[in-house]
Amino acid sequence: MTADIWDVVIVGAGLSGLSAAHLLTKRDAKLRILILEGKDRVGGRTVSSEIPAADGADRWDFGGQWVGSTQTHIMELIKELGLEVYPQFNDGKKVLHVGGPASRVRTYRTSIPALSPLVLLDFIQMLWKFDRLCRTVCVQDPLRTPNAAELDSMTVHSYIEQHAWTEELKEQMGVCSRSVFGVEPSQMSFLFFLMYAAAAGGLLALLESTPGCAQEFKIKGGTQQLSECLAQQVGWKNVRLGSAVMAIWQDGEWARVMTTSDTFLCRAVIVTCPPHLAAKIQYQPALPSMREFLTQNMPVGHMMKFIVTYQTAFWKEKGFSGEIVAGSSTDCPFCVTFDATSPRGNPALVGFISGQQATLWSARELVCFISSPRFVLKDWTKEEFSGGCPVNVMAPGLLTFYQPSLRKPCGRIHWAGTETATRWCGYMSGAVQAGQRAALEVLAEVSHVVLTAEEQESLIQAPSLKIHPLQLRVISVCDHKQLF
Amino acid sequence: MTADIWDVVIVGAGLSGLSAAHLLTKRDAKLRILILEGKDRVGGRTVSSEIPAADGADRWDFGGQWVGSTQTHIMELIKELGLEVYPQFNDGKKVLHVGGPASRVRTYRTSIPALSPLVLLDFIQMLWKFDRLCRTVCVQDPLRTPNAAELDSMTVHSYIEQHAWTEELKEQMGVCSRSVFGVEPSQMSFLFFLMYAAAAGGLLALLESTPGCAQEFKIKGGTQQLSECLAQQVGWKNVRLGSAVMAIWQDGEWARVMTTSDTFLCRAVIVTCPPHLAAKIQYQPALPSMREFLTQNMPVGHMMKFIVTYQTAFWKEKGFSGEIVAGSSTDCPFCVTFDATSPRGNPALVGFISGQQATLWSARELVCFISSPRFVLKDWTKEEFSGGCPVNVMAPGLLTFYQPSLRKPCGRIHWAGTETATRWCGYMSGAVQAGQRAALEVLAEVSHVVLTAEEQESLIQAPSLKIHPLQLRVISVCDHKQLF
Repeated sequence: MTADIWDVVIVGAGLSGLSAAHLLTKRDAKLRILILEGKDRVGGRTVSSEIPAADGADRWDFGGQWVGSTQTHIMELIKELGLEVYPQFNDGKKVLHVGGPASRVRTYRTSIPALSPLVLLDFIQMLWKFDRLCRTVCVQDPLRTPNAAELDSMTVHSYIEQHAWTEELKEQMGVCSRSVFGVEPSQMSFLFFLMYAAAAGGLLALLESTPGCAQEFKIKGGTQQLSECLAQQVGWKNVRLGSAVMAIWQDGEWARVMTTSDTFLCRAVIVTCPPHLAAKIQYQPALPSMREFLTQNMPVGHMMKFIVTYQTAFWKEKGFSGEIVAGSSTDCPFCVTFDATSPRGNPALVGFISGQQATLWSARELVCFISSPRFVLKDWTKEEFSGGCPVNVMAPGLLTFYQPSLRKPCGRIHWAGTETATRWCGYMSGAVQAGQRAALEVLAEVSHVVLTAEEQESLIQAPSLKIHPLQLRVISVCDHKQLF
Repeated sequence: MTADIWDVVIVGAGLSGLSAAHLLTKRDAKLRILILEGKDRVGGRTVSSEIPAADGADRWDFGGQWVGSTQTHIMELIKELGLEVYPQFNDGKKVLHVGGPASRVRTYRTSIPALSPLVLLDFIQMLWKFDRLCRTVCVQDPLRTPNAAELDSMTVHSYIEQHAWTEELKEQMGVCSRSVFGVEPSQMSFLFFLMYAAAAGGLLALLESTPGCAQEFKIKGGTQQLSECLAQQVGWKNVRLGSAVMAIWQDGEWARVMTTSDTFLCRAVIVTCPPHLAAKIQYQPALPSMREFLTQNMPVGHMMKFIVTYQTAFWKEKGFSGEIVAGSSTDCPFCVTFDATSPRGNPALVGFISGQQATLWSARELVCFISSPRFVLKDWTKEEFSGGCPVNVMAPGLLTFYQPSLRKPCGRIHWAGTETATRWCGYMSGAVQAGQRAALEVLAEVSHVVLTAEEQESLIQAPSLKIHPLQLRVISVCDHKQLF
């Protein structure tokens, strides 16, 4: 047993943890910062690997891969680290296959799917409703949203059932839910869904690959480079891989962060792992019950991602973009595919098996009859210290009462990770924003570095640090005798 | 580090774990059985304590307290252990206070609340609908329920919003949800709610104190005696208190059950703690992702229970039963109270602060102006190795895909606890049933004791041990080329 002393210990060497470390180091080079990571690599939910390709071998992203120009936090980081982006290829015909195996395969060229006039009208009225509701959502403090309790009391499925006119649109919304969150519309609070879309600037921003949207660009060389470059800047000597944190104990003087072999003393801790993993850490003293209730009820998505490389981009030759949108079906495992041809020109497709399809297909051997032998699939539920992807969602009834615990520090423990972001929550950009916000919280406590007025304002305004309005009313307990 | 060798290690010395141990010991006295418990007492979610009373001091239950004649598993255990039951007192006027602080306090004498004719009609049509749906639920395998996916895709709140006509009934259903589950109607799958009611024989059985219902009897001397008597029979030397299990590792030969100080080798493990605590144990190899998804999404109820003792039972003197049903209000913390006068005649009331009311009230100091100084409150979220009460519910979308993992053994690990019961799930009786079922599973594996034909049949029929029907279809992966 060793007992090293540090200023800040960060749990998790993904984008959020490394962004926090990077900001801390930039602002106060004297801070002693240690990053503990359970995996044997940095990057968290981003990982880039080399696989066989047309010209020998090439590199693809098997986790988070897309960024967009409105994702300012990640775009600034990309620029700072000197990396390059390139647009997602989406020219040509797209394929839509919903309505079951026997239904017709349709093609279209616009960003709006090839829907019949009635379904198109349904789609437009639905988008209009979502958009109008999104604009009422207070992302910082979702409880201030008009009708918050009502919107949080229903699943996305229930809202769609009540407001979609056609079965086809209902099926399409299932595809959206699976491809964005890795869960079914039945598993998510409708208010959470609205908040998530609002944090990205609207629902279409989540779905599209057009400018400003979530699937606009990819990063040359892969997204894991972001974490590798950050680790380089922070200093690899401060990053300990294969060091899973088992317990965090706090007393008046120190926080003690424990792995199976070591104990680290520090003045502040930033926990960046997804909520369902943060819940597995043993805390002493116990965390407030609100925080426990929250992390008990934020299911992580179930998403498998595959890359298939080919000798030729046969889809482009035939005038297709590579985009396929497929409804839930027992005959086809994936929900969406896109062109994934590498910057070097190696043809590939990327696709996702997600939500109930992932559950169904991961339960049995996934025997692949795909014509290329170059099919590589990553099941994030099987990855240790992830257990799922891309994001933890919130079940109904959670935002209404427990959300204030999401970012509220617990003594010396500060919370980061993309789930705690208020802009592009759930995305790489959100991971960076959350890491930077947690770093500012820590600087305000442990460092003599002066925060800018704007930074101080941002911390004061954060509802995580305030008492919740519902808790403000002074209430007296009624006397039993008055009731009889 | 010691490394003791045992036949069976049971995690949790509550009713489920001790019932399992009791059955194992009765059937094969040679089995070496060890029970590990994190708390410093047996009884799990049952605990009986002495508090000041009219004649000096008396004993009350601060956890599970009621049993009913249709709860065959617990009634047989009570008989076997030589304990006595006595009926819940419910003679006299009952008090109903819903509709906000300004609304009229109403009284009634029947088991049906004092509702206006319209609300009464609404209540009857709602009960009729629940009852009809309950009868279609397959408790053993909820997926076989007609429209299972649809019923599991909505919250209880959504169903009530769609089917209740009056605001007052909606409020009443909130009280039901809080008093039975400790959660709001927004936090629960409607299919789970139906399954839970079906496992008890119908919704009214959950709500009433009439014969056969959940609140029919109490146990003289308190419910914790059940666990204490069982521990006595199993042998206190085989029960280790203050021994929280941190990890369970399995290899070809052994399961290794680890506390912070000891490792125990065994041939089978029965984990009886509630799902949110079972999820905190470190498992090697990792549990199947289905099991992880399930336990990540089964929130535990938030319930505080209080006992107030008085010099005289002033409510009885005035012709009241002691029963108060109160809607959610910021002026009154509790949802229900009942008479809790002890068998020795010490007057008392018992009440519950639950769901959102518990969240609201536990967040601030609960300043009590109650006229008696003899007010004792138990907040189960603050109790280590419980973290909530009375039961873990299921969020929407969970039963549909992940429920088969609830009882399905993982290698040498078998699952018990009242949440895994199929009769009176969530109750003490369910805890006993689940413990006995897990014990039979273990006997079938580790003991030469012959199970009866009936016992074998019950194990074979258990869907936990079968492949799920959804997983049976052999499906081929489609060829991408066919789509372009």
